[in-house]
Amino acid sequence: MFIAKVIGTVWATVKDSNLRGYKLQIIQPLASNGEKAGVPIIAVDTIGAGPGELVMYITAREAVIPLGVKEAPVDASIVGIIEKVDIGL
Amino acid sequence: MFIAKVIGTVWATVKDSNLRGYKLQIIQPLASNGEKAGVPIIAVDTIGAGPGELVMYITAREAVIPLGVKEAPVDASIVGIIEKVDIGL
Amino acid sequence: MFIAKVIGTVWATVKDSNLRGYKLQIIQPLASNGEKAGVPIIAVDTIGAGPGELVMYITAREAVIPLGVKEAPVDASIVGIIEKVDIGL
Amino acid sequence: MFIAKVIGTVWATVKDSNLRGYKLQIIQPLASNGEKAGVPIIAVDTIGAGPGELVMYITAREAVIPLGVKEAPVDASIVGIIEKVDIGL
Amino acid sequence: MFIAKVIGTVWATVKDSNLRGYKLQIIQPLASNGEKAGVPIIAVDTIGAGPGELVMYITAREAVIPLGVKEAPVDASIVGIIEKVDIGL
Repeated sequence: MFIAKVIGTVWATVKDSNLRGYKLQIIQPLASNGEKAGVPIIAVDTIGAGPGELVMYITAREAVIPLGVKEAPVDASIVGIIEKVDIGL
Repeated sequence: MFIAKVIGTVWATVKDSNLRGYKLQIIQPLASNGEKAGVPIIAVDTIGAGPGELVMYITAREAVIPLGVKEAPVDASIVGIIEKVDIGL
Repeated sequence: MFIAKVIGTVWATVKDSNLRGYKLQIIQPLASNGEKAGVPIIAVDTIGAGPGELVMYITAREAVIPLGVKEAPVDASIVGIIEKVDIGL
Repeated sequence: MFIAKVIGTVWATVKDSNLRGYKLQIIQPLASNGEKAGVPIIAVDTIGAGPGELVMYITAREAVIPLGVKEAPVDASIVGIIEKVDIGL
Repeated sequence: MFIAKVIGTVWATVKDSNLRGYKLQIIQPLASNGEKAGVPIIAVDTIGAGPGELVMYITAREAVIPLGVKEAPVDASIVGIIEKVDIGL
């Protein structure tokens, strides 16, 4: 899993029918110093993360697991809201 | 999923027979500031995106799901047309 | 597998229920000169690695294998504690 | 899929037995301006691409599909010869 | 597959039990000019590559195939020893 910040939302009326009903969030992956790392990702959120919150997200095939369906056209999902990161070494 | 812009098309007469019939679009992944990020991708489009439109795309194994077949030699698909991106944090 | 250093931990009370009970470590991938390479990763640790230790980690679908379950929303796992790296060429 | 140019070949007598019989090509992924992007890839070619030709290639699990076998130790395959790329936006 | 050089070995007594018995090599991915590209990788070697040799390696799910088991916590395997690379375009 990786660390990201919820930075926005996305509107897409025309989309694959298997994506309907999922809450999509735009998240920005972060480096260990809190700087942006790479491009933003559109992730499905089944956790209920709010704008600006730090989250853990998961990618690829495993991103479908939190959705409770056998398969979905989803390759990124938020799997946790991070309360505290302790990086000390 | 990631954010990209439809930037062109590709002609390939000689191709894997399992690719025939799919509409291929060249899409350019974008960073959060709208700049190009990384190399262009050839994605299957089952949504009907037009040139210059912002889209969401999906990669890897999940890219086959919008095609409605069990498997296909496809690792990127457009899954939505983005009307509005709201990045505020 | 890749080489990383255990650099911290993460607190996430609100998380996918299939993640409960796993020990999560923040690991920093390393380049061959020992410098940081890329962003930190949140990995499941079934090995018992301690802070500051060098570890081997595995990504993607295979990261679920050390957990002993059929599937889990996990895309990175620590699979070994590195005692010595011998890079000589 | 991504865009690459066939730039060479590779000789490997000692190799996994499941790789025997496949034609291997070295391909160089390209950016939208035609510059090299990232490292060269060794891809299986079931299409018959020639040196210097532009090709589409596919990665990961889907790269096995063009081979017509259930599984093979292959993570990149050429799936089309590109006649023309039209990038206009 | 990608091109790498065998640059070292790794000692890890404490490791996932499904990794025991595999020969692990540290390999360095190379760019087309022979320079290092990205971080070193720990790959399983079922081929018998020696220090300093150029190899082809495979990643992700397909990396398990050379091992002859149904699944293993392995995401990189050496699948061939490269005798000659001919890059001419």
